[in-house]
Amino acid sequence: MKKMVAVVGGSVIKDEEIRQIAFETGKEIASRGYVLVCGGMGGVMEEAAKGAKSVGGIVVGILPGKDKQEANPYIDIPIVTAMSHARNAIIVRTADCVIAIDGEYGTLSEIALAKVIDKPVFGIKSWDIEGVIKVPNAKTALDIFEKNYEGLY
Amino acid sequence: MKKMVAVVGGSVIKDEEIRQIAFETGKEIASRGYVLVCGGMGGVMEEAAKGAKSVGGIVVGILPGKDKQEANPYIDIPIVTAMSHARNAIIVRTADCVIAIDGEYGTLSEIALAKVIDKPVFGIKSWDIEGVIKVPNAKTALDIFEKNYEGLY
Amino acid sequence: MKKMVAVVGGSVIKDEEIRQIAFETGKEIASRGYVLVCGGMGGVMEEAAKGAKSVGGIVVGILPGKDKQEANPYIDIPIVTAMSHARNAIIVRTADCVIAIDGEYGTLSEIALAKVIDKPVFGIKSWDIEGVIKVPNAKTALDIFEKNYEGLY
Amino acid sequence: MKKMVAVVGGSVIKDEEIRQIAFETGKEIASRGYVLVCGGMGGVMEEAAKGAKSVGGIVVGILPGKDKQEANPYIDIPIVTAMSHARNAIIVRTADCVIAIDGEYGTLSEIALAKVIDKPVFGIKSWDIEGVIKVPNAKTALDIFEKNYEGLY
Repeated sequence: MKKMVAVVGGSVIKDEEIRQIAFETGKEIASRGYVLVCGGMGGVMEEAAKGAKSVGGIVVGILPGKDKQEANPYIDIPIVTAMSHARNAIIVRTADCVIAIDGEYGTLSEIALAKVIDKPVFGIKSWDIEGVIKVPNAKTALDIFEKNYEGLY
Repeated sequence: MKKMVAVVGGSVIKDEEIRQIAFETGKEIASRGYVLVCGGMGGVMEEAAKGAKSVGGIVVGILPGKDKQEANPYIDIPIVTAMSHARNAIIVRTADCVIAIDGEYGTLSEIALAKVIDKPVFGIKSWDIEGVIKVPNAKTALDIFEKNYEGLY
Repeated sequence: MKKMVAVVGGSVIKDEEIRQIAFETGKEIASRGYVLVCGGMGGVMEEAAKGAKSVGGIVVGILPGKDKQEANPYIDIPIVTAMSHARNAIIVRTADCVIAIDGEYGTLSEIALAKVIDKPVFGIKSWDIEGVIKVPNAKTALDIFEKNYEGLY
Repeated sequence: MKKMVAVVGGSVIKDEEIRQIAFETGKEIASRGYVLVCGGMGGVMEEAAKGAKSVGGIVVGILPGKDKQEANPYIDIPIVTAMSHARNAIIVRTADCVIAIDGEYGTLSEIALAKVIDKPVFGIKSWDIEGVIKVPNAKTALDIFEKNYEGLY
């Protein structure tokens, strides 16, 4: 069974810095052999997926709509939920840990849904919520995850 | 079709003040003729349901588990979702507005899921999140709702 | 807590006989004091809801879409799931028993989802599936339910 | 994006013939380069997953519970829905076509949920439902799928 890391974040890329962070996060996740799981749509999800594919990773997109064609072009395995934002709960349950990058209310819901089931959540320029571990980049996030949490899930 | 107001909050009552706020909130909602919708479990949900029933209101509980027997004793209409926290998305979509009282990560997920679909969210001693309208009590919340939002949903 | 009976069936009324059966079924359910739960849309759901309202019953509609305005005009309490056909599982879990009238694949999915969790299912001119109790009308269905099953759920 | 084929069937293997059919079905799906998607549990799901892995395929398990440890040992990518049988709707939406093998009411719900959204469904010693294409084996099913349906989804 593959270990899986979720990337959650805004469906629109705010600036070039966020784009790079998202891309590097996906790349780091895939480089370490994790499957990347995300919401499958645009913005941070797409950049992270692109980063993971740049090093040959596997990307799962848990889509909110009814049509797999809405997935961004870097999704290998689209899961078609047709359940709108309620699919956010599936993304975080499926992941062994969650990395949040920027993001608005959808991202906040994913952070909260992850914390309510005690999944480790790392934040990079994201919501400042108690219990979210602030990190500068995915490398630090995954170092902490591997040292402290791996094997718990 | 009935107008519906959601109460979201902690599944454990933290102190007597929160208990009273939850009870008065349920009572105020029912007194104005709204159906109260909540997660159906204990804590703030139960106190609000009790308050609504104290004035003859109708209470809907959208339950996370598989068994309607888990509902608190003040639920008239249990909706049995068997979908755990993903049911939080249904609570806030069903409601015309949301009142958050105290609460932890589950409540935060409900606030975020409500904001992502542009539902008005009022907070009483709850999470301090941008976009949540802080109010001292349900009376103020429902006055604002009736003046500014009613009929939009 | 209210006892609840689900009516499932086609979203289009096939003929006048089915219309009458659906209406009488809703009326019988409400006359006996049960809350009627259905998918909230047109066809058999709407006629049954109309029948329940004709005797002052309460009708819950568990809607597949994102907008409560899609509910038929006889729904008192719309539950807005935004989860498409996956909401069929919620309808049958919420009900104490299920009455199927006519119907196509959606109805078949509800029959199957009810049987998989051992809910009693009655069929009136509906799918001929092992385990579905064929009855001529709702009166017979509810007589059997009250004699053999009530209190189990 | 990968093409995906669902295998649905009983969570208990009824006899040696069903075991072989399930194994060969998984093997045939993977041999043709499709990702196998299933409910992730035991019985037909497990045998099909085992068959797919025997030729190096990728297997996605869309789990009903809260814990990925409940997945059978041949699942590469567990999707943890925590939504019980409502996850059946996700399995069939995610798939480009569905192969049903034996099975009871859960399988019937998957057949119905697939047909309601017009997915092609093939049956091998499974429910005899109008609209299900009866086939002797997965080879025939996938030949028909590739000739008549592929590219539609």
